[in-house]
Amino acid sequence: MTVRSRLDKKMDEYALKLTTSMDFDENIFYYDILVDYAHVIMLEKRGIIDRDSARKIVLALKKIESEGFSSLSREYEDVHEAIEARVIELAGENGKKMHTARSRNDEVATCLRLFARDRLTEIMAEILEIRSVLLKKSKMHLNDVMPGFTHLQYAQPTKLSHHLLAYHDMISRDFERFLEVFRRTNLSPLGSAAFSGTSFPVDRFLTSRLLGFDGIVENSMDAVATRDFLVECIFACTSLMLSFSRICEEIILWSSEFGFVNLPDEFASSSSIMPQKKNPDTAEIIRAKAGKMIGNLTAALTIYKALPFAYNRDFQEMNRLLFETLDETLISARVMTGLFEKIEFRTDVLKAKSSKGFSLATDIANLLVMKGVPFRDAHRIVGELAKLEKDEIGAEELADVFEKFGLSLEIAPEELDMFARPENAVEMKRSEGGTSEDNITSMIAKRLEKLKKDEEILIQIKSSIENSLNDLVGEVESFENEES
Amino acid sequence: MTVRSRLDKKMDEYALKLTTSMDFDENIFYYDILVDYAHVIMLEKRGIIDRDSARKIVLALKKIESEGFSSLSREYEDVHEAIEARVIELAGENGKKMHTARSRNDEVATCLRLFARDRLTEIMAEILEIRSVLLKKSKMHLNDVMPGFTHLQYAQPTKLSHHLLAYHDMISRDFERFLEVFRRTNLSPLGSAAFSGTSFPVDRFLTSRLLGFDGIVENSMDAVATRDFLVECIFACTSLMLSFSRICEEIILWSSEFGFVNLPDEFASSSSIMPQKKNPDTAEIIRAKAGKMIGNLTAALTIYKALPFAYNRDFQEMNRLLFETLDETLISARVMTGLFEKIEFRTDVLKAKSSKGFSLATDIANLLVMKGVPFRDAHRIVGELAKLEKDEIGAEELADVFEKFGLSLEIAPEELDMFARPENAVEMKRSEGGTSEDNITSMIAKRLEKLKKDEEILIQIKSSIENSLNDLVGEVESFENEES
Amino acid sequence: MTVRSRLDKKMDEYALKLTTSMDFDENIFYYDILVDYAHVIMLEKRGIIDRDSARKIVLALKKIESEGFSSLSREYEDVHEAIEARVIELAGENGKKMHTARSRNDEVATCLRLFARDRLTEIMAEILEIRSVLLKKSKMHLNDVMPGFTHLQYAQPTKLSHHLLAYHDMISRDFERFLEVFRRTNLSPLGSAAFSGTSFPVDRFLTSRLLGFDGIVENSMDAVATRDFLVECIFACTSLMLSFSRICEEIILWSSEFGFVNLPDEFASSSSIMPQKKNPDTAEIIRAKAGKMIGNLTAALTIYKALPFAYNRDFQEMNRLLFETLDETLISARVMTGLFEKIEFRTDVLKAKSSKGFSLATDIANLLVMKGVPFRDAHRIVGELAKLEKDEIGAEELADVFEKFGLSLEIAPEELDMFARPENAVEMKRSEGGTSEDNITSMIAKRLEKLKKDEEILIQIKSSIENSLNDLVGEVESFENEES
Amino acid sequence: MTVRSRLDKKMDEYALKLTTSMDFDENIFYYDILVDYAHVIMLEKRGIIDRDSARKIVLALKKIESEGFSSLSREYEDVHEAIEARVIELAGENGKKMHTARSRNDEVATCLRLFARDRLTEIMAEILEIRSVLLKKSKMHLNDVMPGFTHLQYAQPTKLSHHLLAYHDMISRDFERFLEVFRRTNLSPLGSAAFSGTSFPVDRFLTSRLLGFDGIVENSMDAVATRDFLVECIFACTSLMLSFSRICEEIILWSSEFGFVNLPDEFASSSSIMPQKKNPDTAEIIRAKAGKMIGNLTAALTIYKALPFAYNRDFQEMNRLLFETLDETLISARVMTGLFEKIEFRTDVLKAKSSKGFSLATDIANLLVMKGVPFRDAHRIVGELAKLEKDEIGAEELADVFEKFGLSLEIAPEELDMFARPENAVEMKRSEGGTSEDNITSMIAKRLEKLKKDEEILIQIKSSIENSLNDLVGEVESFENEES
Repeated sequence: MTVRSRLDKKMDEYALKLTTSMDFDENIFYYDILVDYAHVIMLEKRGIIDRDSARKIVLALKKIESEGFSSLSREYEDVHEAIEARVIELAGENGKKMHTARSRNDEVATCLRLFARDRLTEIMAEILEIRSVLLKKSKMHLNDVMPGFTHLQYAQPTKLSHHLLAYHDMISRDFERFLEVFRRTNLSPLGSAAFSGTSFPVDRFLTSRLLGFDGIVENSMDAVATRDFLVECIFACTSLMLSFSRICEEIILWSSEFGFVNLPDEFASSSSIMPQKKNPDTAEIIRAKAGKMIGNLTAALTIYKALPFAYNRDFQEMNRLLFETLDETLISARVMTGLFEKIEFRTDVLKAKSSKGFSLATDIANLLVMKGVPFRDAHRIVGELAKLEKDEIGAEELADVFEKFGLSLEIAPEELDMFARPENAVEMKRSEGGTSEDNITSMIAKRLEKLKKDEEILIQIKSSIENSLNDLVGEVESFENEES
Repeated sequence: MTVRSRLDKKMDEYALKLTTSMDFDENIFYYDILVDYAHVIMLEKRGIIDRDSARKIVLALKKIESEGFSSLSREYEDVHEAIEARVIELAGENGKKMHTARSRNDEVATCLRLFARDRLTEIMAEILEIRSVLLKKSKMHLNDVMPGFTHLQYAQPTKLSHHLLAYHDMISRDFERFLEVFRRTNLSPLGSAAFSGTSFPVDRFLTSRLLGFDGIVENSMDAVATRDFLVECIFACTSLMLSFSRICEEIILWSSEFGFVNLPDEFASSSSIMPQKKNPDTAEIIRAKAGKMIGNLTAALTIYKALPFAYNRDFQEMNRLLFETLDETLISARVMTGLFEKIEFRTDVLKAKSSKGFSLATDIANLLVMKGVPFRDAHRIVGELAKLEKDEIGAEELADVFEKFGLSLEIAPEELDMFARPENAVEMKRSEGGTSEDNITSMIAKRLEKLKKDEEILIQIKSSIENSLNDLVGEVESFENEES
Repeated sequence: MTVRSRLDKKMDEYALKLTTSMDFDENIFYYDILVDYAHVIMLEKRGIIDRDSARKIVLALKKIESEGFSSLSREYEDVHEAIEARVIELAGENGKKMHTARSRNDEVATCLRLFARDRLTEIMAEILEIRSVLLKKSKMHLNDVMPGFTHLQYAQPTKLSHHLLAYHDMISRDFERFLEVFRRTNLSPLGSAAFSGTSFPVDRFLTSRLLGFDGIVENSMDAVATRDFLVECIFACTSLMLSFSRICEEIILWSSEFGFVNLPDEFASSSSIMPQKKNPDTAEIIRAKAGKMIGNLTAALTIYKALPFAYNRDFQEMNRLLFETLDETLISARVMTGLFEKIEFRTDVLKAKSSKGFSLATDIANLLVMKGVPFRDAHRIVGELAKLEKDEIGAEELADVFEKFGLSLEIAPEELDMFARPENAVEMKRSEGGTSEDNITSMIAKRLEKLKKDEEILIQIKSSIENSLNDLVGEVESFENEES
Repeated sequence: MTVRSRLDKKMDEYALKLTTSMDFDENIFYYDILVDYAHVIMLEKRGIIDRDSARKIVLALKKIESEGFSSLSREYEDVHEAIEARVIELAGENGKKMHTARSRNDEVATCLRLFARDRLTEIMAEILEIRSVLLKKSKMHLNDVMPGFTHLQYAQPTKLSHHLLAYHDMISRDFERFLEVFRRTNLSPLGSAAFSGTSFPVDRFLTSRLLGFDGIVENSMDAVATRDFLVECIFACTSLMLSFSRICEEIILWSSEFGFVNLPDEFASSSSIMPQKKNPDTAEIIRAKAGKMIGNLTAALTIYKALPFAYNRDFQEMNRLLFETLDETLISARVMTGLFEKIEFRTDVLKAKSSKGFSLATDIANLLVMKGVPFRDAHRIVGELAKLEKDEIGAEELADVFEKFGLSLEIAPEELDMFARPENAVEMKRSEGGTSEDNITSMIAKRLEKLKKDEEILIQIKSSIENSLNDLVGEVESFENEES
């Protein structure tokens, strides 16, 4: 073992199995190589190691990169140690200089942030896709009436477009959160060494730039000893998955007794015993994964709680949570996009059920209010009508109840119609953000504009990272060219 | 019951006890009154109710406000219903108009956001206090050497100022998160009614302004059916409490065997049986409360998961979590400030132990590297020295080990001294963000500047809310004056 | 402050507010008095304090008990200190002897176990009630056919009685868990003092008996420093609440679009704006409380994790979780009983929908298997029939598909009827535990027998506690009588 | 796809990746084969399939077993489908009969219970190992004095043996919980089919016996639609891991500044940068894994909450949690055993620090009580002595304080010595379960006896399972022999 140093005995077999991180370090293998490149290039530029040593190390790294993670020996504690050992094998004495002026503490923190930053970017891109699909579908179903629910009971008519916009807005806030988390994540801890910095004249800004970071985590203790970036990455994912879970719940309900959607075959499963089944497994798994993410977040928070500074090995258990959470959120987001692309809303059923459960009751109460009845009385009067257990009521039933309450009100059938037919009722909701066509058209337009802006932000983020990594590759290549 | 309407039978006694929210609605009593004021003022301005009705309602509300929450009857489902019932008692028929053009759905969402916004603001103010104290103490202990730890083992010497700055930076990110959450929280759902908006010509922007919101949650379904603002309020608190838990863990350790601090009596307890005890109960409770907050966050996430739109009564259970979390985070933050104000660092002990556990080993290894030994070899050589189990080593022991490894290196005692004495070693860490005096002085200066900016942001937030509420009070008073 | 002893300064105001447990100690006020009685009686019997002192203390306690918790001063850290201070006020010098040979560590652990034991007993009693109602309803609906679901899709016909028995069996395992937890909870830590026991000649078995415990927690460190009993109390509750949450989810669904039940008015709410609504709030709150309990469990686990021995103040935060969890689980259980007593199953709807979604497909496939078609082929053939999207298929459609697959099978209409009509299909499921009448009748009988046994166990538990407490009261009274 | 039946289109690529369980089904590959054997043997015995078909299937299964999981095609939804498809490949038409009279619902539930049962057994065996080591070490350190702590402050002297017995007792309750969970887990759901049972004349008791179950889960809906067994398996593990986390926390503290133990090299790590470090990584990882398990439990609970009957695909996400939790708990338990075998307690340090922090204060107070001072006064007097901030006090200081409080007490130096020297103080704690030698000797003896009983229980469990599986293998071999 490269790093066991003062310890005479080998680690206990079970203890090694328990503590090794090699089982999931594949996730940061590529990033560790990047970090090694940047570090060695910097060491050379700052004169801490000579150019020849640097070249030998870089070429060894190049070879390790091409061999891939699976070629590394599994007998090491972690990927960092395994790569360094292999570098020493390949580059000889010079390889022993690679770890100058750094510690695994800053190294692993840097790798984690690189991994997270890349996945965050991909998830953000996918959120933009989903938003785009939702806006497209909203437009498509602009005036399709549907029933709205509270307590899963028919409540009031609404519009499919309006409902999809609510999905959109919920998910847009998730995008904001991801962006904020990204800003705090894409910062470089490299050069902080164990936690107090280093006496070698390193250039932390240079490695930061080469790796595409937006800046450095300045205080060297903070840089290696905190993991709030990791925790909030997991939170952002959990929050998004919760948004998805609510949508998936509706898809499960709507493809069941409600009959509001036809599930695309590509996103459904059947049964090993019941050949007639068409099951919303995809939506169920995403719903369940939201629960899994809550567990991952809980684990991360619980592990992190009350840990003294600086590094504790407990941190390692948090890494797996990060990898798993980001990966599974990304795939879930991709499936959500595909599902929304292909799902078929049964607008006939939606319309037919939009007055179910006497869902125009509020509108009729409002009509009474406009005729001068105080709202709480109107509410009680219409409550009386509700006892008829009819979906719709006519002028006659209204007259009966007026009589019962001793009201001398006249309501013309046309007037009643304005309030008591779903397609009219939804148009009358002209309050800002309500279901009228004007409102919805305006909301779609504003959201399309915002989507465009967010797309531009993301493009800029991606190209900035790309440019940096191109520079890094350029430096690596300059070493390769020298050799020949 | 005002709102049971179509239901003939009274609620089952246990069911009412189970479902009532009156036990914790005191938290939003004041905010509900504010919302009622703003709503009624708007209804009157938009001609939805007449001025006389509005005045009667406003005066009733004024009376209810002065009577306080405890005067409300406990037989209602919640505070909204209780207040409305009391308004009707006091204002008669006119009182029945108060609930026109709204639902409890938008009402409660508005109250929750007002509560949260105010507590977030208070917590942010407290974070700024703590940051200020930490910066002050950093300055005070600028060059006080102390031992640094990894795995709770003596690792390298560092400085108290540097360590406190790491606390500061960690907590500063919590401030950022609070600010972001505040931006998404301080938005008005009022006027969204059940979820589809209303056919009355309400002015959502007016009520928003009167209540000191920064804008509205536009889509009316989104406004009443989502609670991600609540979830992220709890997350921000949990994150801050985790930061505190780590600091408290160190205080507990440091006031124990390590002996790094003297706990102020005001923040300690004793024992009912062991009269000699001076226990860090305050720090323990904050550590425990971090665990409680993790539980609250888990509960909020779990309750929220997979709920279909729009409102479900499950939301009610989330409210308690919000109240409790914000309140207990605030008090914890206040205690942290006081504790840091009064805590006494035993700089003599810190200094004496700063070379414990052969903590200069890395520096000696670095010295060897600077003499031309590859780092991994230097690491191994110094590892050999570590087996002597001495805190400090001299030139002689160094010579012995050189011999053993067949190295012909000469290191002058003065040179060794530069690396192997804590007060020198920390000064040599000149890498950006490291422990050298220059680094720390510069970090303190930058953070003081940032603190000032954050204070200005908070002042602006507070005065904006205050101005709005003054306008609201003005409107209320204009009704009062009319009457006389 | 009675116990601050060596600390000169009063506790900081915010720190006291943060650390006091007086806000929720009301839960153990009565139990603390019981513990005090038992302790003092034992001290006197063992000659550690004299009879006169003991009498004065007992009488003071009697007075405090009658004054109630609300009379205690709020300036103390906790209820133990407050009671002791009041005893000293009332009994003078003698009162100062009460805390001999004990610590708050063993005292609070004893109080918590008494509280928990009593609530566990009440919850167990309530579970037996629910089981009884479920068995009664199963009998009532013995042969009522209903649709069964997987993935919330119509799957196969089943019977309401069979479904309710599944509820019953799930909840019965919860009863088992409660009983096991009770066995580990109802043990006395009293006499363990701080953690190492005491040099006074106490009699731990005597206090244990007087308080109705089944025995002692022997090792004195274990007795005061562990809280796994508390954690598993919360887990048992969480598990029960999860069982309830699944039943409540079905009630919510079934009172919605599925239309399988009529919700009793006593367990429903309406809406402040939509007068027609009849909402399953009760079921929603129980569902949400399951989430709350998950949070409480998480909090308890998280607080408890990695705490060193013996007592840490962190434990105090766990107490609230215990109180709240047990109380809210109990009320939820009571509501579940009431709800099941009154809920009305719409057996006509259940029957009408029992063949929906071609739910007899499996049975038809089985018929083909019995005719010699390998199951996987039969599954495929019937899958073909499913594409017709009919709820039921006749002999003709069957013939068509046989032709398509080149099968020369003959199936008489009567034969098809045996398999393809819900009421027949459920009777054919004669495998142990399946839906046939014989199976169900036998299951009900066995469960009624088991219920009786469990009731007897609980009666014995209750009477054993009661007898002990009667002895304790007898001892207290003997002091009272002496005085006169 | 074998089971897609009525679905025309292939599953979406991302959706398949999201929903497939093949990534972790390796855990139940072997168990699924066992279930297939038992099912087919039963089908043949009951005449549901003929002997020849059964033989072909059994031989195919035998081949698949020997090929191993990695040979299965990854294009299937899960291992059950993959195995069935391979059976059909190998056994032709006859293979299509294997899935007769069952569903994946009962199949997977059976596999999970087999997996869990086996791991639970292994963990229980390991707990017995740890208990054995702890008892051995207690005996070894019978009278070694050590300091005891509350709030991590020196509190009272105790004994290492007593402390280790507290560990033992805590872990013994974990054993009890595992045993209870095992009883509810080792029951067979097989034969319940989708949830309503089957119309084929299966023999559920036969398959139950062949698989080594203790009985069946009777109600067929309960058998496939509940997962409380899974949840409580995870809880039992979490509880054990929490016990470990507390012990590990002490190991971390004790190998740090306290210096109470020497960590064995085999269970320690070093640092990549700081060659002198010897870090308690093993203990840290176990501590962290306790946090991970809390997360897994939370996830399982959250996923399970509010799921309607019967099977939902959400269940699949719970399986991973089961696999991971049981596996990692087992390895952690193994490491704990090894760690305790090798850890070295520094009894000299323990003794030297046992009077630190004036930890004899309680004993001195007790001495005063025995001299007639009421406890609360004695507490205050000794509190005064504590202000001297000395570890030990002599007769002179005692006299001073008596004078100050106006007490005319005489305490002989020998008498003081009896109470104020650690080795005497611990012997005086003769209360049941206290630290006196008699107490500890008796506790060790009782626990050794209990350990023996628990070992016998476990041996019986294991041999019962073994015998059953031998029968199953015998049946399989009888098919193999026939062929030849």
